[in-house]
Amino acid sequence: MTKFPSKKITELFNIKYPIIQAGMVWVSGAKLAAASTNAGCLGIIGAGSMKPDLLEQHLKKAISLSNNPHALAVNIPLLYKYAQEQIDISLKHGIKIFFTSAGSPKKYTKYLKDNGATVVHVTSSPQLALKCQDAGVDAVVAEGFEAGGHNGRDEITTLCLIPQVTNVLNIPVIAAGGIKDGKSIAAAFCLGADAVQIGTRFLMTQESSAHQNFKDAIIKASPSDTKLMMKKYVPVRLLKNNFYDQVQELEDKGAPKEDLIELLGKGRAKKGMLEGDIKDGELEVGQVSACINDVPTVAELVESLVLDYKKTINLF
Amino acid sequence: MTKFPSKKITELFNIKYPIIQAGMVWVSGAKLAAASTNAGCLGIIGAGSMKPDLLEQHLKKAISLSNNPHALAVNIPLLYKYAQEQIDISLKHGIKIFFTSAGSPKKYTKYLKDNGATVVHVTSSPQLALKCQDAGVDAVVAEGFEAGGHNGRDEITTLCLIPQVTNVLNIPVIAAGGIKDGKSIAAAFCLGADAVQIGTRFLMTQESSAHQNFKDAIIKASPSDTKLMMKKYVPVRLLKNNFYDQVQELEDKGAPKEDLIELLGKGRAKKGMLEGDIKDGELEVGQVSACINDVPTVAELVESLVLDYKKTINLF
Repeated sequence: MTKFPSKKITELFNIKYPIIQAGMVWVSGAKLAAASTNAGCLGIIGAGSMKPDLLEQHLKKAISLSNNPHALAVNIPLLYKYAQEQIDISLKHGIKIFFTSAGSPKKYTKYLKDNGATVVHVTSSPQLALKCQDAGVDAVVAEGFEAGGHNGRDEITTLCLIPQVTNVLNIPVIAAGGIKDGKSIAAAFCLGADAVQIGTRFLMTQESSAHQNFKDAIIKASPSDTKLMMKKYVPVRLLKNNFYDQVQELEDKGAPKEDLIELLGKGRAKKGMLEGDIKDGELEVGQVSACINDVPTVAELVESLVLDYKKTINLF
Repeated sequence: MTKFPSKKITELFNIKYPIIQAGMVWVSGAKLAAASTNAGCLGIIGAGSMKPDLLEQHLKKAISLSNNPHALAVNIPLLYKYAQEQIDISLKHGIKIFFTSAGSPKKYTKYLKDNGATVVHVTSSPQLALKCQDAGVDAVVAEGFEAGGHNGRDEITTLCLIPQVTNVLNIPVIAAGGIKDGKSIAAAFCLGADAVQIGTRFLMTQESSAHQNFKDAIIKASPSDTKLMMKKYVPVRLLKNNFYDQVQELEDKGAPKEDLIELLGKGRAKKGMLEGDIKDGELEVGQVSACINDVPTVAELVESLVLDYKKTINLF
C-alpha cells in the first residue's frame, strides 16, 4: 500500500489514488475519463467544448466503459452558455462530482449541493479560494501559472500558490500546474496539498482525444515553447506556433483586447487540439510539455506515477 | 541528524545544511553572509551593488564575524563593470566559492578554476544550464520564474525547471525561486535538487541590510503583489508600488526598451531596498513575499527551516 500524507480527497471521492485527471477541452472525453477511473483516479469529462447532446453521448459512453462510474466527474466552465443544461444532463445520468471553473463559485454551488453533488472549484489565487470556501464548495483546485490552458492574472506559481491557499482554507486543496510524475506529486504533498490534478500528462495518453499531430508537437516541445498569452483578454498558456506568433505580435505593439478577440475568432482550439492543425490552431498545454516524450495508456501512466512517487518518498 | 537525499552540495562546500543564502544586491552584506555561515549554511555576499573598495570592507568584516569563513562566497554579476576587480579582491581575501550570474559562464569560469575556486553559475533554463556545465562550472543554481529580482525570459517555474535541468546535467543542481520553509525545501529535493538557494526569506532576517520600510512592505504584501516586469529590457520581479505602476503603464502601451531604461534611471534599487523609499524605489522580491510575516535572526530562521523540513519528510 502506497502512503499518501492526506486521505481527504481519496475519501471524499472514494478513489484509490489522490490523482485527478483534469477536464480538458477537446481532449478529455469518455475514453480518457473512463480509463482514468479504471486506473484508480478521478476521471473528468471536459464539458467546455461540448454542446449538451454531445456531452450526453460522452456521459453514456463513459459510464458504460467505467468499472468505477462513481469516480466520473464533469468539468463545467460556468461562463459557458450551456452550463445549466450540462449540469442537469450530468445529474440525470447520475454524475455526483462537479468541477466548476471560469465563473463565480456562488453561481451553481448551492444548486449542485441541493442536488446531492460534491463541488470543486478551480482557483488561481488565495482570495478566490476563500470565496469558493464561502460559497460552500467541498474542495478547491489551486492551479499555478505553469498550468496549460486558461490561467489566472496574478501569475502565482504552484510552488507559491499551494501554501498560500492551504494557509487560509479549511477544506481540501488539490494542486495543479506542473505536475507530471511521482516527483512532482510528492512535491505537491510536501507543500500541503491533499491531492493533485494532472492535465498535460493525461493529454499525452492513448485514450485522450488530442490529435496525433498535437501529441507529436508536445513530444518535440522544448522548455521555452509554452507561454502565458492573451493576458488582456483571457490568460491562456499556449504551445508556440504560427497562431501564437500572431498573438505575440499584437501584444508586442500593445493592441487592444478587441484585436485579440478578432484574431482568436471561432474554433481555433478545436482546429488545433482535436483536428491537428498545429500551425494555425490554438494549442493549450502546460510547461511540463518539455519533459513529456511518450504516449502510454492511462493504466501504464498511473502505474508509473505511483511507482515513481514511491521511489521519491523513499529518498527521505 | 537530519536526512537530506543528496550530500553533493554539503560535501562540495563542506557545510552542515544544503541551504544557500542567496546573494542579493543591497541586502546581503557581511552581517547576513557571516550569520548564514555561522548557522551551517553557505553565506553569499551580493557584490552586484558594491564598488570594489566596499566589497573589500564587507569581505574583511564577514571573515571576522564568521566561525566558518570557508563557507563565505561572493555573487558576481558578470556584466558588472567591476567583475574582474571583484573577483581578484575576493581571491586575495581567501574566498574560494564564487556564484556568477548575468553573463556568459565561459567568461570567468576558467580563470576562477585556475585560481583554485569552486564556481556555480545561475541559470533559468536547461539550455543555459548545459552551457554552464560545458564551461566547467562545479554546480548550477536553477532559478524559477517565482524568484525575486532578475530572472529569465522563458518564465519557467521552479517546479518545471528543476526536472528539466537535472534531466540534462551531471553536476549538482541548486533549486531557487519559491523556497521559503521546510515544506518547499522538501519539495525541491523531491524534484531532484541537491540543495536550495533562498533569497527573500533571508532578506527578511535581522542581519540583512534591507531597509526596515522594505521589510515592513514585504510583511504587508499580498499574493498578487509581485510581478515579473521589464521583459523587453532585463526581466525583474518587483514588489508593486508607484515605480512599478509607471513601468506597467509604459509596458501596457508597448513602449520601447529605451523608455524603460530612462524610467529606471540610476539608483532606483538602492533607493528602495537600502534607503527605504518604498514608493519610488525598485523593490526586488520573490513571490514568496506573500507568505512571510516575521523578521527572525538568521540562527532562528535556519533552525525553523530544518525543523519544518523534518516535520515535512516525516509525513511520508
